[in-house]
Amino acid sequence: MLFVTSNPGKAREAEDILGFDVEQVDYDYVEIQSDSLEEIAVYGAREAYKELGEPCFVDDSGMFAEGVGGFPGPYSSYVYSTLGLDGVLRALEDIENRTARFDCVVAYHDGSEIHTFEGTVRGRVAKEPRGEGGFGYDPIFEVEGDEQGRTFAEMSPDEKNSVSHRRRAFESFADFIA
Amino acid sequence: MLFVTSNPGKAREAEDILGFDVEQVDYDYVEIQSDSLEEIAVYGAREAYKELGEPCFVDDSGMFAEGVGGFPGPYSSYVYSTLGLDGVLRALEDIENRTARFDCVVAYHDGSEIHTFEGTVRGRVAKEPRGEGGFGYDPIFEVEGDEQGRTFAEMSPDEKNSVSHRRRAFESFADFIA
Repeated sequence: MLFVTSNPGKAREAEDILGFDVEQVDYDYVEIQSDSLEEIAVYGAREAYKELGEPCFVDDSGMFAEGVGGFPGPYSSYVYSTLGLDGVLRALEDIENRTARFDCVVAYHDGSEIHTFEGTVRGRVAKEPRGEGGFGYDPIFEVEGDEQGRTFAEMSPDEKNSVSHRRRAFESFADFIA
Repeated sequence: MLFVTSNPGKAREAEDILGFDVEQVDYDYVEIQSDSLEEIAVYGAREAYKELGEPCFVDDSGMFAEGVGGFPGPYSSYVYSTLGLDGVLRALEDIENRTARFDCVVAYHDGSEIHTFEGTVRGRVAKEPRGEGGFGYDPIFEVEGDEQGRTFAEMSPDEKNSVSHRRRAFESFADFIA
């Protein structure tokens, strides 16, 4: 099945979890502005299907910090590349509620309709970046339930991938397909 | 001519500047994610024309702070409603380069092609909010060239409107139509 993403690593991860062949298609579908990852992914899957003409799926992810209305949310990538982690931490200074979540939504166009699957990891925004692994917000995201209170960037890739929001969304997608 | 906007105040302002009848249409066209206001407005004008079937225009605006890669830029409205002005100011703490600009792009679909018109006001991000007027980022935007160093929110509506990015974009649009 076609996974429309610019990231070959994501396609391999999806194949591992889904248990069937996944072919990466690097088509730059339209991402709309919305507070909702689901709306963005559904629109993207529709656009990608129009272009490709066969069943395909897309995903979208973001970190949502509860104390600031879900910021940076759907715009996590833009905010990372402009403010950076330091800027995000400054913006969160004095914010007592540091609860956050990573969400991932997969939208699958089966040729006639679109199905969505969501995965979430709950956690907190750290006071400063910790760890060398991962990418994006991983160094400032402390995973809920981790006994050592580590950030995603302090885990090995396998550890992170075993609990990640993306894995959870793909597992839900895999259940549906099965 | 049709101005596709949810804001009746903008439609009246446009009519004043353009010098011909402007009818507000409150159609919620798709806004795409992009670093470029022009791309967002062009896509929106195309969508709006598809829906309405007659010449129409849309506009998009944002505040771009140079020291943080243009943040919040196209996502100014989302960032205002999540981080708020205080959060934006915290994110800019320790950032020495406080140069900023307000940009507005008007995209006009004439029935066969799309024309764009840009207006810019240069300024700086203030250290704290000042003034009671305006909306959005006006209290933290100090207008370049103002002898009293005022923010947009410290000006009367007429003063602000006489130099605003939106006026400049509409004036450029008016010249084209004339």
